[in-house]
Amino acid sequence: MIIVMEANAREKDIEEVKRVIINAGLDIHISTGTDRTILGVVGDKKKLGGKPLEMMPGVEKIVPIMNSYKLASRTFKNGNTIVKVGNVEVGGDEIVIMAGPCAVESREQLFEVAEVVKISGAQFLRGGVYKPRTSPYSFKGLKEQGLLLLDEVKRATGLKIVTEVMSTENLEAVAQYSDVLQIGARNMQNFNLLEEVGKIKKPVLLKRGLSSTIEEWLNAAEYIMCEGNYDVILCERGIRTFETATRNTLDLSAIPVIKENSHLPIIIDPSHGTGVWKYVCAMSKAAVAAGADGLMIEVHPNPLEALSDGAQSLRPDKYNALAREIKVLAEVCGRKFNGD
Amino acid sequence: MIIVMEANAREKDIEEVKRVIINAGLDIHISTGTDRTILGVVGDKKKLGGKPLEMMPGVEKIVPIMNSYKLASRTFKNGNTIVKVGNVEVGGDEIVIMAGPCAVESREQLFEVAEVVKISGAQFLRGGVYKPRTSPYSFKGLKEQGLLLLDEVKRATGLKIVTEVMSTENLEAVAQYSDVLQIGARNMQNFNLLEEVGKIKKPVLLKRGLSSTIEEWLNAAEYIMCEGNYDVILCERGIRTFETATRNTLDLSAIPVIKENSHLPIIIDPSHGTGVWKYVCAMSKAAVAAGADGLMIEVHPNPLEALSDGAQSLRPDKYNALAREIKVLAEVCGRKFNGD
Amino acid sequence: MIIVMEANAREKDIEEVKRVIINAGLDIHISTGTDRTILGVVGDKKKLGGKPLEMMPGVEKIVPIMNSYKLASRTFKNGNTIVKVGNVEVGGDEIVIMAGPCAVESREQLFEVAEVVKISGAQFLRGGVYKPRTSPYSFKGLKEQGLLLLDEVKRATGLKIVTEVMSTENLEAVAQYSDVLQIGARNMQNFNLLEEVGKIKKPVLLKRGLSSTIEEWLNAAEYIMCEGNYDVILCERGIRTFETATRNTLDLSAIPVIKENSHLPIIIDPSHGTGVWKYVCAMSKAAVAAGADGLMIEVHPNPLEALSDGAQSLRPDKYNALAREIKVLAEVCGRKFNGD
Amino acid sequence: MIIVMEANAREKDIEEVKRVIINAGLDIHISTGTDRTILGVVGDKKKLGGKPLEMMPGVEKIVPIMNSYKLASRTFKNGNTIVKVGNVEVGGDEIVIMAGPCAVESREQLFEVAEVVKISGAQFLRGGVYKPRTSPYSFKGLKEQGLLLLDEVKRATGLKIVTEVMSTENLEAVAQYSDVLQIGARNMQNFNLLEEVGKIKKPVLLKRGLSSTIEEWLNAAEYIMCEGNYDVILCERGIRTFETATRNTLDLSAIPVIKENSHLPIIIDPSHGTGVWKYVCAMSKAAVAAGADGLMIEVHPNPLEALSDGAQSLRPDKYNALAREIKVLAEVCGRKFNGD
Repeated sequence: MIIVMEANAREKDIEEVKRVIINAGLDIHISTGTDRTILGVVGDKKKLGGKPLEMMPGVEKIVPIMNSYKLASRTFKNGNTIVKVGNVEVGGDEIVIMAGPCAVESREQLFEVAEVVKISGAQFLRGGVYKPRTSPYSFKGLKEQGLLLLDEVKRATGLKIVTEVMSTENLEAVAQYSDVLQIGARNMQNFNLLEEVGKIKKPVLLKRGLSSTIEEWLNAAEYIMCEGNYDVILCERGIRTFETATRNTLDLSAIPVIKENSHLPIIIDPSHGTGVWKYVCAMSKAAVAAGADGLMIEVHPNPLEALSDGAQSLRPDKYNALAREIKVLAEVCGRKFNGD
Repeated sequence: MIIVMEANAREKDIEEVKRVIINAGLDIHISTGTDRTILGVVGDKKKLGGKPLEMMPGVEKIVPIMNSYKLASRTFKNGNTIVKVGNVEVGGDEIVIMAGPCAVESREQLFEVAEVVKISGAQFLRGGVYKPRTSPYSFKGLKEQGLLLLDEVKRATGLKIVTEVMSTENLEAVAQYSDVLQIGARNMQNFNLLEEVGKIKKPVLLKRGLSSTIEEWLNAAEYIMCEGNYDVILCERGIRTFETATRNTLDLSAIPVIKENSHLPIIIDPSHGTGVWKYVCAMSKAAVAAGADGLMIEVHPNPLEALSDGAQSLRPDKYNALAREIKVLAEVCGRKFNGD
Repeated sequence: MIIVMEANAREKDIEEVKRVIINAGLDIHISTGTDRTILGVVGDKKKLGGKPLEMMPGVEKIVPIMNSYKLASRTFKNGNTIVKVGNVEVGGDEIVIMAGPCAVESREQLFEVAEVVKISGAQFLRGGVYKPRTSPYSFKGLKEQGLLLLDEVKRATGLKIVTEVMSTENLEAVAQYSDVLQIGARNMQNFNLLEEVGKIKKPVLLKRGLSSTIEEWLNAAEYIMCEGNYDVILCERGIRTFETATRNTLDLSAIPVIKENSHLPIIIDPSHGTGVWKYVCAMSKAAVAAGADGLMIEVHPNPLEALSDGAQSLRPDKYNALAREIKVLAEVCGRKFNGD
Repeated sequence: MIIVMEANAREKDIEEVKRVIINAGLDIHISTGTDRTILGVVGDKKKLGGKPLEMMPGVEKIVPIMNSYKLASRTFKNGNTIVKVGNVEVGGDEIVIMAGPCAVESREQLFEVAEVVKISGAQFLRGGVYKPRTSPYSFKGLKEQGLLLLDEVKRATGLKIVTEVMSTENLEAVAQYSDVLQIGARNMQNFNLLEEVGKIKKPVLLKRGLSSTIEEWLNAAEYIMCEGNYDVILCERGIRTFETATRNTLDLSAIPVIKENSHLPIIIDPSHGTGVWKYVCAMSKAAVAAGADGLMIEVHPNPLEALSDGAQSLRPDKYNALAREIKVLAEVCGRKFNGD
């Protein structure tokens, strides 16, 4: 931590700041410049207990130096984390695809999509059964009944299941049937929920919040990891900006930024990221080329009849075509994908 | 709902869209322009069940006409909602001030602040006991112990209490001791929590999410109201933008926008809105001049020792001076405030 | 400037950075922490000539300490700058109002508005004659003919004139007739234009860019000032965010931030800031309460017939009512305003 | 254009709106719903001359249906525009790379970079000689002297030249030496400059503004095109968001959005888009995979000595490696690239 003193800070102001730092058991280095004095604080700043030094007389600003997350950082672990979900590895050589409907709507719909995505090489079936919806009057999912359908299709197809857990009340139920626990964008800073999934031995897919910085996102991962669950998969799904041509702005730069700062795998959701099915293929390919470890894609046998987010869902034939393109692309990018 | 057809839409595309609309039991009006055809859909669009008509061949875009919230809208209720908390009215003639520490830290701290804010005219004592924190390593509040302290100071001073409820697990405890249930910005779209507070007979203070539009905010209020709890107080606390000179960008335009579109009271939190104590006074006065029904302000007897958000907390003397200014300002704005 | 080394930086990396700093004629202070080494650079960093030290091996990041603007900063000048425009002072005790139509449309329109705003106490008539428009097919202003109309109304009423200069080509013409040269939001970083207005002895009204930080805005002022023209009036007019209920998000926090960091006067334009006439009164009052030095408000005798931005223009009667409210408000805020 | 009347609009309000529409020579279609009346306006809305109908009594809002740009739209021209620059085609089968230093600094630097980028297959040499800089104290380019250097290297290498024109004053000079006129992000809405480059017979590279929507960007292209210059190349270079891990947020979704709505070619600038050289390779590959027609990349023989933006410049060896990867990628994406 760096403490920048004001140009006209008095000697006694500087002394007082030094006193506080030293009393907290920290070391201090002083740079006296032509314009102002700068104090470098050495040691674990938690010893300061969140004390707002910027309020002390003569202090202009505080510049933090270290990230607040540790377990999620590249500094903590040099190699890449590979999250194992049965025989599937997320973060390894192989591109992982999680495909399926936005919401589980019926047995027929789910089995039809599962068949399609399995043939095209997806390792995971996605499908929401607890649905966060902006309006209370929208379809909120099949809930427990949907979990049973997911379980049935899993047994029938061997696909792994990823579905969202919206609250601690249904965590136990979701954890019983789902292979990966998805934390949605709106819950990225639902800290109670993060702590609870941290206590369970199940991989977590942590979506980035609509207006969360990458640092906040890694801090959310830290919440899960510091409870003992290290199997966190990050998922970029678009951030909120002024642009309205797309539902969100898919921040693909997050891929190299995460790869530099963290050891956790990252996958991309171009369906929510763009909100428009026509843009999903282009952004899926871009994600793989940028180094993503996988994709989460919405597929619906009949998007027109979808109860949720149909406009961003691919029809089966489009999805098949995309899977074939991903296979070729993955190879020239030094990855693998087992599409047909 | 308006359906805009593409310039080169075929007659059969238009017919197909018409068929879907009519089959859903809705009426349709057709405008055939020089460039393209536009279809106006008349009736309750919920009959369409979320069908993504924008995916139908020949459809360029769908333009929604009606807001999705109803109970929260000015159309639903013409007069202003006044939320009664004991003998205090939020949304009435009087400016309401909710002041206190960011976090309850100790009995001494809490009583000292309570004394100060009560003398200066605040009707509510604020103070977090369950604290949402970006990093898992920060102070997370005194929890149940803090609730007991709030209860004690309430009995001693007569101040009303407002404190945050972070999850359904502690809803019952918070509801037992707090006069108003605060939903924090990060939980504005924690829909389970919204539904649960909607089932309780306690006023709710609903903070706007960091990246939530005003329409989404009113939809979040709708979640609470459609469960039967109409006592919702809105609280603007800054939105996330590119500007870094302030912690957030306080969107005071939300005041006239809410007053036009909703009957619910709105208060402003300039402490979180700016993140810098030096800016709190200017923005508090601006809020009252713009027509806010109240303010939520962080006050700490010794901000330097605060365990959370000290940098945005006012010292007691600054808070007193502000309260006196608010009193004068309220009067010329046609409001009242019982500051000393 | 602070140089933060990576946790695993080698001794030779640190030595190499030190060598570069010292060779540039700068001093250096070293803090060796438990986790990493931090180097404080003392002296004028311009000696480094923009060298990207963050690219050197072992360097994690560079943290700038000093703002890049000087003449515009509070450090450079402690008292407030008062910009004198004839007998009117901008930045002094009196609230200054610049009112008038978005665009000058005709002699009748201009004189009608001028009469209205003069009676209600405005010191300036605003009115665009060179209009920046998003679409090339929109009305772009009366150009030179409009300047002559502004000149005529100025002689007839004694009102000062403020109008936008869009390019260096028409700078001479605008400077001949206008008392204040307005630089529009889209031109805030049109650096050639800034340099040219900096060479003229005319006060400049510098609007904040739609996506400009306050620091960039003060740097734009610096462009003008370092050419010798110190009479810069800042004007906040809304920034671009995700919210669509208003045309822009009016950032009133800019008022206390500017007052803390700069000596330049700041006025607020709630017409562009909100884009909706119904919200202009609330935000005008908020601006004055927050400490703004003045307001820029669009007034049109018949907004329905306006050729530009009618939807954000006040009718004369609304403007009169607002002026009366501002007068009362100014007084309780320790300012003056000579409304009727 | 759709006019949505308020729920409680009176019959006479509706009649008055109809009268205005019909008087302007436009047709009208009326949808009377259960909640409100909606009016569809048929014909060229320019006949309304910008009249703000949303201000008329009883009108709730106006919903525009048609984009304001025409020449730049896919509706206007179905095939893709290929911009020919000598023997190079931008927007054709071949991926086009424009590489070179941020700023031209010296003859040696320029020739060294030119050699590198030519060997690796770039068709264009980029290099700023008029540099827009946030601070007036930064290096602003070699100006005319830099143009002569660009001309010399062009003759020596056969590379095409692209360099920024910052103002109409230096348009003639830039147009004399540069093959493509670059309009920088800060000048995207410098309408005078757009009009002037529209009058010249030189291809234009139009960068997207930091906070410009795609619709505004295409309107800026329209400014150039409606003056007669149809050779416009769009360049996405990152938009401004809340995220600070990257200098800007590179909006790669702009590629499919532009391809759907316009016939103009689009290239991507990952150097400005990310601001960090380490992220340039990943985003370059992503851009090509998403369907970009080309890339603009900053290369510097010794980034540490760069006078501008060194931190986002690639060293020659990194650039060579990237060019080889682009070549392979282009092929599997159905494009070509003549890298070595």
